[in-house]
Amino acid sequence: MRFFGICFFLLMFVSSGLADDGYDSRAFPRPLIIEYPQNNEFQLKESLEEIRLHCTSWRFAAEANNLNPWKTIPPECAGYIEEYMTGRGYHYDLERVSKEAQIFANSVKLGDDGRDIWVFDVDETLLSNLPYYARHGFGLEIFDHAEFDKWVEEGIAPAINSSLELYRDVLKLGIKVFFLTGRRETHRNVTVENLIKVGFEYWEKLILRSSEDHEKQATVYKSEKRDEMVKEGYRILGNSGDQWSDLLGSSIATRSFKLPNPMYYIP
Amino acid sequence: MRFFGICFFLLMFVSSGLADDGYDSRAFPRPLIIEYPQNNEFQLKESLEEIRLHCTSWRFAAEANNLNPWKTIPPECAGYIEEYMTGRGYHYDLERVSKEAQIFANSVKLGDDGRDIWVFDVDETLLSNLPYYARHGFGLEIFDHAEFDKWVEEGIAPAINSSLELYRDVLKLGIKVFFLTGRRETHRNVTVENLIKVGFEYWEKLILRSSEDHEKQATVYKSEKRDEMVKEGYRILGNSGDQWSDLLGSSIATRSFKLPNPMYYIP
Repeated sequence: MRFFGICFFLLMFVSSGLADDGYDSRAFPRPLIIEYPQNNEFQLKESLEEIRLHCTSWRFAAEANNLNPWKTIPPECAGYIEEYMTGRGYHYDLERVSKEAQIFANSVKLGDDGRDIWVFDVDETLLSNLPYYARHGFGLEIFDHAEFDKWVEEGIAPAINSSLELYRDVLKLGIKVFFLTGRRETHRNVTVENLIKVGFEYWEKLILRSSEDHEKQATVYKSEKRDEMVKEGYRILGNSGDQWSDLLGSSIATRSFKLPNPMYYIP
Repeated sequence: MRFFGICFFLLMFVSSGLADDGYDSRAFPRPLIIEYPQNNEFQLKESLEEIRLHCTSWRFAAEANNLNPWKTIPPECAGYIEEYMTGRGYHYDLERVSKEAQIFANSVKLGDDGRDIWVFDVDETLLSNLPYYARHGFGLEIFDHAEFDKWVEEGIAPAINSSLELYRDVLKLGIKVFFLTGRRETHRNVTVENLIKVGFEYWEKLILRSSEDHEKQATVYKSEKRDEMVKEGYRILGNSGDQWSDLLGSSIATRSFKLPNPMYYIP
């Protein structure tokens, strides 16, 4: 039993080190662990299991839109979220959403009037701000508009590759694409440049927040814009976004695809 | 490195045994594992990690409503889902949804006309069919209406305790409750008896599928019933259900709460 306790203890701490063919001896010298008193070892195992359970559950609740509005990730989940975002978990989840969306897109019979469209959000949907959030605790810090704007203005956000694949597939099928973002009109040029640079070179419309939309909740602003699309005769087949406020409200798409994002919440 | 490989291997297989202060020696005699060739050991570790990643991702996609319609769980995730449903994960997630719903319910200012309501689904929301699904592979088998009906007619489904807490809290606040289920009218009596027996003793209305609703998709049937509630002047504050078809469509609640259910999907 003691053997298993030690194993678990070690694995929880050095899981990142496994890939590098070793563990971080600076953080935890091996002899110290092997000689750890049994009671503490069990308590630690218990609490590590508890944190993993707790943070997985929190992440599920976030993705299923069950959480009341939140401003930062739970502090005790900082390590868990970092591991998820920088490890394989996040990319694996992104790829799955993209694949499911592609299956759906390929299954739809399009009209011959060119009015079938797909709506994409931009941040954490087409473009990744992970380099920014990596410097800001992966959601542990309260969102700083001014700091984030500086990052946006650099125009160097990389593409989310799985979304690029979906985007290309959707275009190839003859579905028109609309980009609908919470970014402001003042960021139009830098957003256009950034999008084109990383492979999103064509769109039917890129909609940014104009001054009269600044104070609106994202759900309201995005619903109004989708209402306009529907009024113009477009049929919204698919909608991809990392926030539920990208997807819910009025003029909901036939299928909505929620990309993972456990770092921040926009109501 | 070999030590970690062995640890991981053992932990994946004997995690259930840990609680019993040992591992199942019938399934995997210890000497066999210790002497396992290193290459196979790594391959196995890799594939176990892969399955865990894959099935967690699948479960997330299901809970976020990203999956195309599915009839059974992925066969390779059978063990993962069983562990989730019978271990602490499922109950932990259920409790979190209930708590978030309670926070929301307690934050709402009610009207003084008694028209504020909360809608609850029944199966896997108020009542648990886990004893049935435990006998049927936790979603691994294709749904068998006749078999499931027999189970329903026994009238012995236990309460989901976290939902019982939410239900009691909601009633205490003065919010009326509606039960809206996909069960048929022919099961009204047994459903009433089952609900009362496990603590759900009061409701404003219990709505079951009448014969004209049999062929409708759940989303359509439930939306129509919610439309009627709204027409009668009720305000749907909350809606709790384990299926997205309980929550989406028209007359959506102010807040919808998606209870976990990785075992089956109802469109």
